[in-house]
Amino acid sequence: MSAFDELLAFQRQTEALSSVAERLGWDQETVMPRGATEQRAEEMAAMEAVLHERRTDPRLGEWLDRAEPEDAEDARIIELIARDHRRASRIPARLATELARQTSLAQGIWAEARAKDAPGDFLPVLNDILMLKREEASALADGGDLYDALLDDYEPGTTQAEIAALFDAMRPRLVALREDVLGAAFQPQPLTGHFPQETQLRLARTCATAFGYDWTRGRMDIAVHPFSSGRWQDSRITTRVVETDPFNCLYSTIHEVGHSSYEQGIDSDYAFTPLGRGVSMGAHESQSRIYENQLGRGRAFTGWLYQRMSDAFGGLSVPDADAFYATANRVTPGFIRTEADEVQYNLHIMLRFDLERDLIAGRLDVEDLVEAWNARFLRDFGVAVDRPANGVLQDVHWAVGLFGYFPTYALGNVYAGCLHAALRAAVPDLDEALARGEADPAVEWLRENMQRHGGLYAPRALIERATGTDVSEKPLLDYLEEKFSAIYRL
Amino acid sequence: MSAFDELLAFQRQTEALSSVAERLGWDQETVMPRGATEQRAEEMAAMEAVLHERRTDPRLGEWLDRAEPEDAEDARIIELIARDHRRASRIPARLATELARQTSLAQGIWAEARAKDAPGDFLPVLNDILMLKREEASALADGGDLYDALLDDYEPGTTQAEIAALFDAMRPRLVALREDVLGAAFQPQPLTGHFPQETQLRLARTCATAFGYDWTRGRMDIAVHPFSSGRWQDSRITTRVVETDPFNCLYSTIHEVGHSSYEQGIDSDYAFTPLGRGVSMGAHESQSRIYENQLGRGRAFTGWLYQRMSDAFGGLSVPDADAFYATANRVTPGFIRTEADEVQYNLHIMLRFDLERDLIAGRLDVEDLVEAWNARFLRDFGVAVDRPANGVLQDVHWAVGLFGYFPTYALGNVYAGCLHAALRAAVPDLDEALARGEADPAVEWLRENMQRHGGLYAPRALIERATGTDVSEKPLLDYLEEKFSAIYRL
Repeated sequence: MSAFDELLAFQRQTEALSSVAERLGWDQETVMPRGATEQRAEEMAAMEAVLHERRTDPRLGEWLDRAEPEDAEDARIIELIARDHRRASRIPARLATELARQTSLAQGIWAEARAKDAPGDFLPVLNDILMLKREEASALADGGDLYDALLDDYEPGTTQAEIAALFDAMRPRLVALREDVLGAAFQPQPLTGHFPQETQLRLARTCATAFGYDWTRGRMDIAVHPFSSGRWQDSRITTRVVETDPFNCLYSTIHEVGHSSYEQGIDSDYAFTPLGRGVSMGAHESQSRIYENQLGRGRAFTGWLYQRMSDAFGGLSVPDADAFYATANRVTPGFIRTEADEVQYNLHIMLRFDLERDLIAGRLDVEDLVEAWNARFLRDFGVAVDRPANGVLQDVHWAVGLFGYFPTYALGNVYAGCLHAALRAAVPDLDEALARGEADPAVEWLRENMQRHGGLYAPRALIERATGTDVSEKPLLDYLEEKFSAIYRL
Repeated sequence: MSAFDELLAFQRQTEALSSVAERLGWDQETVMPRGATEQRAEEMAAMEAVLHERRTDPRLGEWLDRAEPEDAEDARIIELIARDHRRASRIPARLATELARQTSLAQGIWAEARAKDAPGDFLPVLNDILMLKREEASALADGGDLYDALLDDYEPGTTQAEIAALFDAMRPRLVALREDVLGAAFQPQPLTGHFPQETQLRLARTCATAFGYDWTRGRMDIAVHPFSSGRWQDSRITTRVVETDPFNCLYSTIHEVGHSSYEQGIDSDYAFTPLGRGVSMGAHESQSRIYENQLGRGRAFTGWLYQRMSDAFGGLSVPDADAFYATANRVTPGFIRTEADEVQYNLHIMLRFDLERDLIAGRLDVEDLVEAWNARFLRDFGVAVDRPANGVLQDVHWAVGLFGYFPTYALGNVYAGCLHAALRAAVPDLDEALARGEADPAVEWLRENMQRHGGLYAPRALIERATGTDVSEKPLLDYLEEKFSAIYRL
């Protein structure tokens, strides 16, 4: 066997094991008995120990030195394995294992603290995790910036300076749009009523199918915090149900279908190689957001959805499809990121980005986090947080060690804005299909121009290749201003 | 760290990884998307490769040589790890990995072949697996008997000669009892009607709770072939539902609770050591069978169940609790092992035991298996198999490589007979509790005398310690003759 083949065979097993670890995470958040937390933490730690050992295996270094790529795919595989090897080799095995164990345990503690609205039960645990993450960041940064080292795990090649500049460019237009919208004379009506769980889930399945979700290679379950999980032949989605708000379930589902569709759409020849996964969290989020928002909350698709929901629930509190479109895009003051409308969503991200940079840099202590969150929220949103579950306890991310992850959501929105502009230009009659509840032309365009490539191109290069232009926040902001000016009759 | 502590720390991680592999097996049989078979086979193979590497790790040999036990528990831990290390070291890594991959793939192929009643789709795959298992048996046997080498994996210390002698002692009395029962003037009525799935599952949960199942450390799902899975804090059960036969669901559930109860009942100090699992398949089956049969199908518990089922289904086709008791223990000619009554069950096992010994010894070819099965079934049961799904395709075991496993079911029945006699002597008023739907006194006795010990004692020693007498088929046969003579008014 050539060095490259040795490398590929070894990596194949590592990819399979990492897929197992991901499946174990899915199990923990959907079906695991609540008394199994200690056992699961040990299991996660054991898997991480095995994965870390493989990623730091000295043979990798030898094979990487000797591997000779035959084409661009081979070269990219070598680049990605080398990157993974280099990063893993900087992290001591003890730290990797301990992080897996602590974050598995912390998930349950966070969920209980949130349910009891008791930040004091969670913050000490968060502090432990922050200390471990800072240790990890120091190891990874190798003298460089700590936050950049973490961010690089989720969005390779991006720095906090770039993100900060992007956010600075976005903020004024978003804030202005929000002010206009909240102050507009016309305000859409909320959707009121009781929407039974079973009906919501049935509709959610219909929506997932409309967006091309392949049920033979996936499934849908309920989770506290919807997520998607897995790759290739086994990419699962989760959703949640609030019986007073069917949009929560339906748009969570379409969002997660965007993620899973990306994984399902990757060239199957890439399975069990580093090319066989979405290339970054930002690229991933671009898919979930374009499915959910630009397509799912557009006038054409909501027209179809209005009819479906009216039939399923036996009438709706809004009079027609136009009113329904406005309702589905209603902008209101609110505490919760995952329930935020398109106008305000990125402002929620900016808050988290700044706070977590301060935490990682040591400028903010965990014990001051509640106060810092609440002060910042009041400043940014003009509303005082009423309780911790609506504030700092709302997201699971920090509990599971995801520092540097939040900005990829906003980046995903920016990418989605770019992709949407290109998609509309390429498929001018897309709305005709969407109005029939068929997202196929959009899914096909995204699959062909982006999804199938998996990890082959770096994130920004991938988007620029698909759109034919540089990545910029402008298409997203133009789209938002146009859409919401029309809805709010500004 | 002492050599023993090194050994323990290493084993702790191995146990956690083996628990992950078991969880992956659960996933495959309950929730996995049907299109994920190839991916899952790779994942299972990767986990097996890691486990095999750990079990054959040369450091184990060094630690085992130097480890100094401080007490009987330490000594048994060393014995069990050494045994595992010795067996694993005889199997080439390639073979272990290939077996994991092939048996994962074969499961789906078996299920489809069974559904289509097409043995030709499955037998070539079975032949591949048989060849791999024979190779494994040769490696393990080290010149000794092939079948004994496989049997030893499930029931350490037992030989096919012992099993054959036991079966020879059991067969005449079982056959005579069956003839008497099937020829009796009185025949219990079958239960007829339609029993909705949701109601069956609700009752199944009630029964599981009655038998002490700890829902905080387990859950129940639907599977084609009910099984239990996992240990300590995460021991799950599965069941199946046939809407014309509620006994199928309810007694499958109680049976699996027996298995899971054993795992849940093991001393939690043993978690992640080789003592933290049921000691053998026979010991395991003794628990599932005593829960299901001696307790669950006894007059006292069925009296309570009769009332519960009458309430839940709005009346039953049998007139009273006595008639219901006879119905729940009805003996009829039938093809399916898992649906067999207590009288005939072991005859189904004897058939499989003889056929699989012939397969492993090379005296029977897979291509002749259908014919051999059908001929033997006709001879043993006096009925011709009507279709392969009711014959050789009915069990998943051989598809997943479980040769040498079937006899442990019969051994479990023998153990259950011994335990039941001792339990009744120790808890004379047990029926009073069972008549109230409370199995607690029985579960407590079993937990104290058997379950909590996990792997501490060898299987036969464990049963003999709990019962105070030698293991013998006599208590089981006495119990069956007494019970069925009374029911059938012989």
